[in-house]
Amino acid sequence: MTSTHPRSAFESVDLLKAYRQVRAHSMALAAPLSAEDHCIQSMPDASPTKWHLAHTTWFFEAVLLDHHAEGYQAMDRRFHYLFNSYYEALGPRHPRPQRGLLTRPSLDEVLAYRRHVDAAVETLLSSADSQALGRIEPVLTLGLNHEQQHQELLLTDILHAFSCNPLLPAYRAPSAPALRLAGAPPSLAWLEHPGGMAAIGHDGEGFAFDNEGPRHAVLLQPFAISDRLVTCGEFAQFIADGGYEQARWWLSDGWAAVQSNGWRHPSYWLPPDDPRLALSGHHGTAGWHVFGLEGVRPMQADAPVAQLSFYEAAAYAEWAGARLPTEAEWEVAATTLPGFCQAEGAVWQWTRSSYDPYPGFRPLPGVAAEYNGKFMVGQLVLRGGSVATPVGHARPTYRNFFPPAARWQFSGLRLAKDL
Amino acid sequence: MTSTHPRSAFESVDLLKAYRQVRAHSMALAAPLSAEDHCIQSMPDASPTKWHLAHTTWFFEAVLLDHHAEGYQAMDRRFHYLFNSYYEALGPRHPRPQRGLLTRPSLDEVLAYRRHVDAAVETLLSSADSQALGRIEPVLTLGLNHEQQHQELLLTDILHAFSCNPLLPAYRAPSAPALRLAGAPPSLAWLEHPGGMAAIGHDGEGFAFDNEGPRHAVLLQPFAISDRLVTCGEFAQFIADGGYEQARWWLSDGWAAVQSNGWRHPSYWLPPDDPRLALSGHHGTAGWHVFGLEGVRPMQADAPVAQLSFYEAAAYAEWAGARLPTEAEWEVAATTLPGFCQAEGAVWQWTRSSYDPYPGFRPLPGVAAEYNGKFMVGQLVLRGGSVATPVGHARPTYRNFFPPAARWQFSGLRLAKDL
Amino acid sequence: MTSTHPRSAFESVDLLKAYRQVRAHSMALAAPLSAEDHCIQSMPDASPTKWHLAHTTWFFEAVLLDHHAEGYQAMDRRFHYLFNSYYEALGPRHPRPQRGLLTRPSLDEVLAYRRHVDAAVETLLSSADSQALGRIEPVLTLGLNHEQQHQELLLTDILHAFSCNPLLPAYRAPSAPALRLAGAPPSLAWLEHPGGMAAIGHDGEGFAFDNEGPRHAVLLQPFAISDRLVTCGEFAQFIADGGYEQARWWLSDGWAAVQSNGWRHPSYWLPPDDPRLALSGHHGTAGWHVFGLEGVRPMQADAPVAQLSFYEAAAYAEWAGARLPTEAEWEVAATTLPGFCQAEGAVWQWTRSSYDPYPGFRPLPGVAAEYNGKFMVGQLVLRGGSVATPVGHARPTYRNFFPPAARWQFSGLRLAKDL
Amino acid sequence: MTSTHPRSAFESVDLLKAYRQVRAHSMALAAPLSAEDHCIQSMPDASPTKWHLAHTTWFFEAVLLDHHAEGYQAMDRRFHYLFNSYYEALGPRHPRPQRGLLTRPSLDEVLAYRRHVDAAVETLLSSADSQALGRIEPVLTLGLNHEQQHQELLLTDILHAFSCNPLLPAYRAPSAPALRLAGAPPSLAWLEHPGGMAAIGHDGEGFAFDNEGPRHAVLLQPFAISDRLVTCGEFAQFIADGGYEQARWWLSDGWAAVQSNGWRHPSYWLPPDDPRLALSGHHGTAGWHVFGLEGVRPMQADAPVAQLSFYEAAAYAEWAGARLPTEAEWEVAATTLPGFCQAEGAVWQWTRSSYDPYPGFRPLPGVAAEYNGKFMVGQLVLRGGSVATPVGHARPTYRNFFPPAARWQFSGLRLAKDL
Repeated sequence: MTSTHPRSAFESVDLLKAYRQVRAHSMALAAPLSAEDHCIQSMPDASPTKWHLAHTTWFFEAVLLDHHAEGYQAMDRRFHYLFNSYYEALGPRHPRPQRGLLTRPSLDEVLAYRRHVDAAVETLLSSADSQALGRIEPVLTLGLNHEQQHQELLLTDILHAFSCNPLLPAYRAPSAPALRLAGAPPSLAWLEHPGGMAAIGHDGEGFAFDNEGPRHAVLLQPFAISDRLVTCGEFAQFIADGGYEQARWWLSDGWAAVQSNGWRHPSYWLPPDDPRLALSGHHGTAGWHVFGLEGVRPMQADAPVAQLSFYEAAAYAEWAGARLPTEAEWEVAATTLPGFCQAEGAVWQWTRSSYDPYPGFRPLPGVAAEYNGKFMVGQLVLRGGSVATPVGHARPTYRNFFPPAARWQFSGLRLAKDL
Repeated sequence: MTSTHPRSAFESVDLLKAYRQVRAHSMALAAPLSAEDHCIQSMPDASPTKWHLAHTTWFFEAVLLDHHAEGYQAMDRRFHYLFNSYYEALGPRHPRPQRGLLTRPSLDEVLAYRRHVDAAVETLLSSADSQALGRIEPVLTLGLNHEQQHQELLLTDILHAFSCNPLLPAYRAPSAPALRLAGAPPSLAWLEHPGGMAAIGHDGEGFAFDNEGPRHAVLLQPFAISDRLVTCGEFAQFIADGGYEQARWWLSDGWAAVQSNGWRHPSYWLPPDDPRLALSGHHGTAGWHVFGLEGVRPMQADAPVAQLSFYEAAAYAEWAGARLPTEAEWEVAATTLPGFCQAEGAVWQWTRSSYDPYPGFRPLPGVAAEYNGKFMVGQLVLRGGSVATPVGHARPTYRNFFPPAARWQFSGLRLAKDL
Repeated sequence: MTSTHPRSAFESVDLLKAYRQVRAHSMALAAPLSAEDHCIQSMPDASPTKWHLAHTTWFFEAVLLDHHAEGYQAMDRRFHYLFNSYYEALGPRHPRPQRGLLTRPSLDEVLAYRRHVDAAVETLLSSADSQALGRIEPVLTLGLNHEQQHQELLLTDILHAFSCNPLLPAYRAPSAPALRLAGAPPSLAWLEHPGGMAAIGHDGEGFAFDNEGPRHAVLLQPFAISDRLVTCGEFAQFIADGGYEQARWWLSDGWAAVQSNGWRHPSYWLPPDDPRLALSGHHGTAGWHVFGLEGVRPMQADAPVAQLSFYEAAAYAEWAGARLPTEAEWEVAATTLPGFCQAEGAVWQWTRSSYDPYPGFRPLPGVAAEYNGKFMVGQLVLRGGSVATPVGHARPTYRNFFPPAARWQFSGLRLAKDL
Repeated sequence: MTSTHPRSAFESVDLLKAYRQVRAHSMALAAPLSAEDHCIQSMPDASPTKWHLAHTTWFFEAVLLDHHAEGYQAMDRRFHYLFNSYYEALGPRHPRPQRGLLTRPSLDEVLAYRRHVDAAVETLLSSADSQALGRIEPVLTLGLNHEQQHQELLLTDILHAFSCNPLLPAYRAPSAPALRLAGAPPSLAWLEHPGGMAAIGHDGEGFAFDNEGPRHAVLLQPFAISDRLVTCGEFAQFIADGGYEQARWWLSDGWAAVQSNGWRHPSYWLPPDDPRLALSGHHGTAGWHVFGLEGVRPMQADAPVAQLSFYEAAAYAEWAGARLPTEAEWEVAATTLPGFCQAEGAVWQWTRSSYDPYPGFRPLPGVAAEYNGKFMVGQLVLRGGSVATPVGHARPTYRNFFPPAARWQFSGLRLAKDL
């Protein structure tokens, strides 16, 4: 949230339009789901759809309305306890692993809560003068970007929930292949960079999260980076070559995860003998199948491999005689090297960079201090953006992050090597 | 299931009436619940309402229709995998702790499944001749008793789920005090029995589960048993006397459970400083509150204490200078001693008897062999029946059973002592 | 401890002789072990040898010397915290699962502690008059029987520890086959009992633990019981017949234990492809091997099968078309039926009786109240005695008990059936 | 292991002297310990002393003797299975958490193993010509540095084991205050660095581990770093100020660790009411005590705080209005800023750098490939060296690493801040 920069004029019309658009998109994403689907939590790391809808609404209430909308009356103050996610400064909250236990408030009540807050925000915006808008705009913008982050999680979380159902239901009807993206060249090419001084991080124009700054100089060694993502077909070769059975390709923690969890392939892949193939109506098929938003489908060899943990991405890179790029290499390559494809819109791309603070980083003051900084340990940076990322949300400086064993995101990889 | 006894005539009309009544009662119990409520599983030991509705239906399909209804077409054969509970002989099944992940099939589909099976059962009954009815009746009766057992679990399971919601929602609107039962004398009296030979167990008239037989002789020592159940008010004295802080009253495993779980009172009791009292709108109240089907209510001193584990029941009895009755003492007293109140309709009553097989017990042949016998280790017998038990379901020979740490049933106690 | 019965005269000479004998036997059992062996705790349920040596000594200090030896000075009062096992009334104590962390006090210090207490006991006995001896004798006798119980545990615990060492070391040099007991007939015969009234439990002559009384009448159905124990050869047939792969033979909890623990054979059996066979020098052998006090040895077909859980014993009985005897059946048969072999000296014999209190049982007053009564839930009764039981320790009324999954005792089975 | 650099001449005399010195130091460190102490493993992350003695010996056998000593005969080939630590390429091995179960081989056998290998190494060295020495020297040097690493772990592991004993025994007799190091100024001063280009990493002279290279340029922002370590007295102020009770100072994972583990102070600190103070003979004392190699001693206010997790170090820095230095800042400051005290010899110093590979890092070929590289995820870098680090072992480029929750090392912190 570096967005308190000067700007010629704040216009409530544009803010309102953006607000309506983002809020409507959440509703559209939830539309295919039943009330039961809305309530499920399939693991502690995932949240119910209903919770996402309520929490993003609470965020506007807690950081915007309670401070900027005089006389605002909450619909139900108990929601403050239920829908606070992790803001210690805002008091105790419902335990994360038990979000799926909240059958009440009902979906209808949560939708009424959204309408209640939406009305208050609209009133606030329409009545705010230019000075007030200057105060409101950064908070509202943060809230919208926050909701967009949850839009992606809403999809990955419900997909995980459906993956736990032996019927493997489809979130939406199959369409044209979703992941076969324009511009993905069939054969991998290496893009070279001579190294040297470069700058990474957000430069202060437009919105960015606090963890993307300050922009700062970095020193790069000469490197090469692949022009496109690793595909399912390529990853299947890694499997066929015994990739999951040989410790030599794996980091120690990764190998331990393979052993203790029995990993044999990416999270949502189904081998031909998977009993769920019969249950979900895919009898007598050969080859890999992959579960996704459109249900179970035959593996597409040229689609980017997804739902990988960092461990699997790093092991694949090792097997391929390469490595993962650092986040600085990724950002410099994505912004300066012609031919760099699939930067966004396919899968998030694991980097070989731990999620450490940038030089000079300090968390924001106030409640938003807990937004990013306190998570800067034990995670790895992913760059890019995925099919589930709302259009316009990501940027080349964007730092996504997950623990190395996380496997339920649209997460894949791009290769790099030293020159 | 000792019900293959001779009978003058089987009448499909009576069977049909019973079938409709039991099936309708399940629907009535589920009626106050939303689709989200139907889907929740709050712990591995509990099941979602929707699952209860589907599983009891599957039971009729698997043991009745598949064997007795020629040409029966299942609505969806995948349900066999989803809704088998624990019958190893019927093949693999969905893991019990993951029943709450089944947002699909939807509640609507499960209700359609019920109608599908109901129609087939009705057709079967209306077309069966007397000989066929003779074969059908025991299976159907077992299925109905089975569904009645799940009716009680449906209530205790949803109550547990609601108890995990900090809003502590009410299953139904408060009515007249539900547990203040007629016939419960205010002061406890001891009913005496001289001991000697007696017979317990089902005698072969009417339906009974296999674990209730064979009826057999037992030898009793002279004993006394209390005429009524231990009340909330009495149990509150145990708490006030430091009952949960002194090892001396507890079995070793019970004391370990107290320590590791932080037990300080019965499962659904709320002390005055419980933060959920404020969240559920009970500000500024003193004394204990108790959560139940009608939400949070002030403790009623003369209501039977419920939601006790065996460990707590045994510790209370020890503190009270008494003991729990054996199941034989309970059964003999309930059937022969005048003044024995609250045998049924209030709470199940923990006995000091482990759930061992009766002399001569053999599991039933066929699928139903897994109904009771394989659970005969590590559990304690409860006798009586509770407010959640369907009317007419229990009998004095009924052997209910739960592990000693189970706390989510309507389970309390009655005292006994040696003479 | 029902031993406060009248007796013509207490003689300190006999008591002293018994004391010296029992204490010396503990030292003899520990003799083959190194200081390191003395200190190891291979699971929370087992205790280090050194701890057994110290705890049994502490018992004499805490229940005998502190109350009966005027002016007794403890060697080190910190031992009270370290070596109390589970007596809540005697204050806080070192956590059971962490007994193996006590490298200090050293073995030498523990041996000095034994000598210190032995000297005090000897002084006490030599200076006590007849009246004092009358008070001392029951306590001392309890202490000696207590130490004998730990002598058996000392062996089973160190055997478990050695079983966790891939070298599978031998506790003692191989001798003549230890478990091929005289009197075990090669072919199994059924001994019949007509049922009816019988009495079980200790009758008050000589020492017995409190849980063996009161002696009381029981009613038995007609039954048959096998004249000898189930052998390794017979159990191998159960395995070969797929016993560990078929749910039908197992209690539900037992089948869950098989699945989650990967049980495929008794605890200390080694299949021919076990890699530890090579490590322990048994190359190129066929057939089962069994690990025991004398290390790894080829399975002896006619030796009693041991190291069984209750679940495995019950599953075998089911497979064999029989059942386990109740503890009453066992006791009556052992004491009245001619031809009843292997009652003692081979393996403890699982019964189909949960460890419930006898009618009229009340725990002893004082510290010893915690000796037996508080463990009377969640366990099963074993009868008989094993190769590890000190000679003269067991009796036909003896009630040994363990949880149903326990597998590290010399525990096997004898069959029974209804007539 | 960058040590295959050219060198004028290899002398077996110097190598032999170094070998003997390092090997003798291990024995000296183990000397105060009993056989029981040698065998204990107090948590999966720690190893028994005996195992350290055997594993370091096995390392010479597996990487040196087996490849370079023609005709070498192992004393016992089973030790290869028992004492391999984590080298997947060398085959299966005894599970790490079960190292404490190896009472056999005995300490005496392990000491014989050391002598066996020592003799073979001495023979090898004395018979090697210059060319052979050129091949041997890098391997031997790696083995010696490897053993030195285990010398530090031997101390921290036995200290952890003793910390689990309620008697809190001392590893050695108290001497002059061990941690009050010369040169530690009483008041903290900030050393400033203007930032800019700098080089870090090992430069190829002398031995270094592979993870210290390649040496490479880094860009630094202007920063200040404290001239000395944070002291116990300062840390006590953090505690007194409620540092362990306020989420605001903590990273999210750190706060979760505080909550779930009940952390209230550094790992080996004892508040005045700790019951172990009485057990270990420190009655009636006020203020903090600290457990260490010399047992329980009153906290020394000016001694460096130790046994901190990364989480605690980072929380302290946040509370102090500062931050942890990056590893590059630390290395540049330690090597260029006058007045930088306590670089080595006191405690390892947590940095704000995740343990990622340096640019251009590739693991070594051969078995040693598993030495460092495979652990480069999920850990934080510590710099410096501690009282437990063998003299001459560490260097300014040395990268020590532990998971962020590790608390059993001599680990503290030094502050930094942006300029």
